[in-house]
Amino acid sequence: MNVDEALVEIREFLPCSTPDAWFAAAQENLPTLLIDHANCEKKAAATAMNLMYRHVANTELLITMSRLAREELMHFQQVVELLARRRIPYLKLGPSRYAAGLRELISTRGSSQLVDILLTGAIVEARSCERFAGLIPILDKELGDFYHSLLKSEARHYRDYLALARRYANTNIQPRLQFFLAREAELVTSEDSIFRFHSGCPVGGLTAANESAPTPLASDR
Amino acid sequence: MNVDEALVEIREFLPCSTPDAWFAAAQENLPTLLIDHANCEKKAAATAMNLMYRHVANTELLITMSRLAREELMHFQQVVELLARRRIPYLKLGPSRYAAGLRELISTRGSSQLVDILLTGAIVEARSCERFAGLIPILDKELGDFYHSLLKSEARHYRDYLALARRYANTNIQPRLQFFLAREAELVTSEDSIFRFHSGCPVGGLTAANESAPTPLASDR
Repeated sequence: MNVDEALVEIREFLPCSTPDAWFAAAQENLPTLLIDHANCEKKAAATAMNLMYRHVANTELLITMSRLAREELMHFQQVVELLARRRIPYLKLGPSRYAAGLRELISTRGSSQLVDILLTGAIVEARSCERFAGLIPILDKELGDFYHSLLKSEARHYRDYLALARRYANTNIQPRLQFFLAREAELVTSEDSIFRFHSGCPVGGLTAANESAPTPLASDR
Repeated sequence: MNVDEALVEIREFLPCSTPDAWFAAAQENLPTLLIDHANCEKKAAATAMNLMYRHVANTELLITMSRLAREELMHFQQVVELLARRRIPYLKLGPSRYAAGLRELISTRGSSQLVDILLTGAIVEARSCERFAGLIPILDKELGDFYHSLLKSEARHYRDYLALARRYANTNIQPRLQFFLAREAELVTSEDSIFRFHSGCPVGGLTAANESAPTPLASDR
């Protein structure tokens, strides 16, 4: 798969672009961005493993999720090594509202629940991919190169989730997908007082001064 | 690392050998063995991920656990593919008493808890390795070859867990290790009415007729 083509597809798929103000905040909050990125990779692996526990009868799902979880764990390790090299302490950091905001719309009923989890998985992976692509030109070379190396697998994860959603849905997935995408647009474009990898539009007075956010270090730039 | 040397070390480390009757039961309950093996790999990955959530300040632990979880997920996928090839349905199967029997001895206090989890991790990996080695000559060639391919990484996981336990312990780990090994010997040698990958000595009337155990298929042999 060509990364540029995948990015065009992902930008068409997403309901809106990430606001410019988020990218500006990312440059200002690099330690928070990196720590939350590590957390997101770990959570993505945990989500995949959760599906592996709940759907043992679906061999294709098990194999796809096992591969996806391994890749997310590899990315997690790469971020952890990067934090160590930059002497950024891996502090505990609460999540943004984003994942919870999507999760609360997920059906609690059997196969509908599985399809909803797969659809939201596709959306989260697509948004991650779009943000990585936007971050590449504005971060330092090491980080830019690293984020570029993630684009291909994140784009594949988006496609894998979408393909599995189509496979396990009994009907056209579009109405349900649009339902989740509408919420996603709200979460991305509305004001958000906390900066994270998937946070919304930073409010005017935004700082990194969340209770547990680390102080940027000189070595980050 | 030489696998034969690692096996000698692991057999010295373990408090007892697996009873012959367990190996006989494994041959008679191949579908249960394989399904429970898949579950064990998944649980091993989940245990490693759990540590990655709780100990974010320990970079070495995060990196070792990320690699370990990826390898367990790869093994999980290999077992799932093997189940599919043999048309063994991946039924839900409750766990044996083994992991819970060790887990109930784990301290609930901070750093003692971490060291206990690492010590029991080493024991479980060592026992798995010993059972794989004993199964290789008595199973069919495909399974024997597969289990042989797992020996090296399982032996490394045992060493990794033990090295991390030493690193994070404030004192000599031997007394605590012997405490867990004594319980492990009880769990392995005392009678167990349920057959699983880590179950104890099969009782005389043992069958695979647990509530959810699958029926062996002709294609397994």
